[in-house]
Amino acid sequence: MTITSADLGTALDALRTRVPLVHSLTNIVSANFLTNVLLAAGASNAHIDNAHEAGDFARIAGGVLVNLGTPDDGTAAAFTAAAEAAHDAGTPWVLDPVGVGGLAWRSGLAADLLKFRPTAIRGNASEVIALAGLGGDTRGVDSSDDPAAAVPAAVSLLQHAEVVSASGPVDHLVGRDADGGVLGVRIGGGSAMLPRVTSTGCSLGALVAAYLAVAKTPLVGLAAAHAHVAVASEIAEAGSSGPGSFAVAYLDALYALDAATLADRVVLDTFEVAEIR
Amino acid sequence: MTITSADLGTALDALRTRVPLVHSLTNIVSANFLTNVLLAAGASNAHIDNAHEAGDFARIAGGVLVNLGTPDDGTAAAFTAAAEAAHDAGTPWVLDPVGVGGLAWRSGLAADLLKFRPTAIRGNASEVIALAGLGGDTRGVDSSDDPAAAVPAAVSLLQHAEVVSASGPVDHLVGRDADGGVLGVRIGGGSAMLPRVTSTGCSLGALVAAYLAVAKTPLVGLAAAHAHVAVASEIAEAGSSGPGSFAVAYLDALYALDAATLADRVVLDTFEVAEIR
Amino acid sequence: MTITSADLGTALDALRTRVPLVHSLTNIVSANFLTNVLLAAGASNAHIDNAHEAGDFARIAGGVLVNLGTPDDGTAAAFTAAAEAAHDAGTPWVLDPVGVGGLAWRSGLAADLLKFRPTAIRGNASEVIALAGLGGDTRGVDSSDDPAAAVPAAVSLLQHAEVVSASGPVDHLVGRDADGGVLGVRIGGGSAMLPRVTSTGCSLGALVAAYLAVAKTPLVGLAAAHAHVAVASEIAEAGSSGPGSFAVAYLDALYALDAATLADRVVLDTFEVAEIR
Repeated sequence: MTITSADLGTALDALRTRVPLVHSLTNIVSANFLTNVLLAAGASNAHIDNAHEAGDFARIAGGVLVNLGTPDDGTAAAFTAAAEAAHDAGTPWVLDPVGVGGLAWRSGLAADLLKFRPTAIRGNASEVIALAGLGGDTRGVDSSDDPAAAVPAAVSLLQHAEVVSASGPVDHLVGRDADGGVLGVRIGGGSAMLPRVTSTGCSLGALVAAYLAVAKTPLVGLAAAHAHVAVASEIAEAGSSGPGSFAVAYLDALYALDAATLADRVVLDTFEVAEIR
Repeated sequence: MTITSADLGTALDALRTRVPLVHSLTNIVSANFLTNVLLAAGASNAHIDNAHEAGDFARIAGGVLVNLGTPDDGTAAAFTAAAEAAHDAGTPWVLDPVGVGGLAWRSGLAADLLKFRPTAIRGNASEVIALAGLGGDTRGVDSSDDPAAAVPAAVSLLQHAEVVSASGPVDHLVGRDADGGVLGVRIGGGSAMLPRVTSTGCSLGALVAAYLAVAKTPLVGLAAAHAHVAVASEIAEAGSSGPGSFAVAYLDALYALDAATLADRVVLDTFEVAEIR
Repeated sequence: MTITSADLGTALDALRTRVPLVHSLTNIVSANFLTNVLLAAGASNAHIDNAHEAGDFARIAGGVLVNLGTPDDGTAAAFTAAAEAAHDAGTPWVLDPVGVGGLAWRSGLAADLLKFRPTAIRGNASEVIALAGLGGDTRGVDSSDDPAAAVPAAVSLLQHAEVVSASGPVDHLVGRDADGGVLGVRIGGGSAMLPRVTSTGCSLGALVAAYLAVAKTPLVGLAAAHAHVAVASEIAEAGSSGPGSFAVAYLDALYALDAATLADRVVLDTFEVAEIR
């Protein structure tokens, strides 16, 4: 069992047909751009980050994003309410552990959230490695930024989540495939302009939540979100002359991308990983 | 007595001449774009959403926007302080009941805010219908998204507000005209790209607050804000190739639009409505 | 001792080489754009505005921005924690006193923050004048918007800070130069579109924090940030047709600007000021 570029195209078609509603709990830096990314890609979004309402809404949403970018006591309570409700209701949810490792308070918050078993965890390499350390694994925190170096940590996090990805020049994803084995997926391509525009990573996390709502497996959903971003950013870079025009072209490209182009252009391969026992 | 396209052009000229200061209390998704919409259109903006200062500022602002997008306990207290002060000081204020109906906590908050008699209520059809149900009307919540279906609810809300609008493919507005009768106004045109860019609705609410500060009647102000958005979005769509470039062109078009073009291009008609007794 | 355009080019090169990490505590209106400005110009940014983490991070950041745009009780505590930690650790920090003078609560907050001796204060003329009044000076609040009129207030604030600037059509900066005397610097040029796009002022404050981390003196860092904005905005205006396209072109221009172009195009002169005793 593996993942093919055709699977990703099928997931994109499902996104456009079903227009999943994402419930996002994110930070004040990314909230606007992240919502525009979801709308451009083909999903819809509601941002509800108070503890009075977050649990109820997580039960009815298609997917939930919990992003630790700018937490405070109020939103932290909402994160917990949303994660618990998503877990109980079977709503797929994504944990984006922004800044975990370097910052103590949110690291404790992230460790607590793992109890509610996120469907997907998406971070950069350092965050994935740090989160694995918090989750009871002893491999500790490594400052490396190379996503390949985060694969063992990502596999370790499969104790807590169905799928895990580390973003970077080549995104590395791991998860259980349809046969129950653990599969690694690499998504290449993309654009060096992505880290020059804020919230491209946060909005990828939101797009994962959208794809989890419609894809046939969590690993296909995770890979489709990464692929949608990688191909759209490549197209956008070709039509831009700096980070301002890139961000504009990126939204246009997320919107215009179709399944055939996605399947044709995605740089995808799979790799074997040994599961942690 | 009716409303003409020339009235809307006059209101736009007044906006540009007087540059009203809007006091906005809005959500973390829309705050940046909403402010850029106000600046581009010709108003200015201050975003003050803490309870220590919101009341004092609402007394001196030209108009106030209270948007329920991402409330928490702190901003909810600021909403109440701003609405009460605006009511006491005679500052026109707009209630944008984002998400009311589907979410219990904010629905209670919206019902409480009606006590301070918003000058204008602006929402989508479902929100207007839901808010009318909260306001003591018995017609209940209807899930329809057609603004025409929201007209009875909008008329019902005239118990609490001077003017009410439901946004959609054709915006439906109701309010008391200069003779004291109730008049319905439809604004057509616009662009299908508006719902593909987040915060276009929220920023329309802010623009209503700006126009209320300068227009000869609340209904003219409400209609001018809707018309400014509709015509600018039409112009923007013609010069764009997706939601990213549309958002950029939309700000440029809000800025460039003049009174003659507004009056020439607006798709405006009026209709009779029976007032609720 | 003076400041030359070559000094500013050297500072820009240092920014690009060292990529300082700014710790920003800012408002919900500016958070996204401000981060994009830092990334485009050549710095990086982390937005951490909770009191649990703000102090720890301010100790390790390259520079800290405290912006009073949309404070609440929670972020106000984080401002204090960050300012105190920056002061103790020797991290340069910037106070942007948004809205000080007209709003009572934040004015008290700003007066308290002066105790932690910001490295730089950046505001518009009215804010600088108001802040000087709060700082124990008796010159009071003047409603003038002309930066030249704010020079005496700016000099007075040198009791609390190393350097102070008042933004406007011509930016006026004061600070101690390498000889210990007080020098005034004017930066002209710029674009009339800057005030038509929200958060251009706030993001200038963040850019000051970035330059303070790399420049040979605080006054050079302050002047380089103002110059980077002035020249990039001039270039952007030439390639845009309204505030939407200006904002996009501005980010592209911040990114593309090199030291030679900065030094060649900056409109810079110095002036003598009498220090307050």
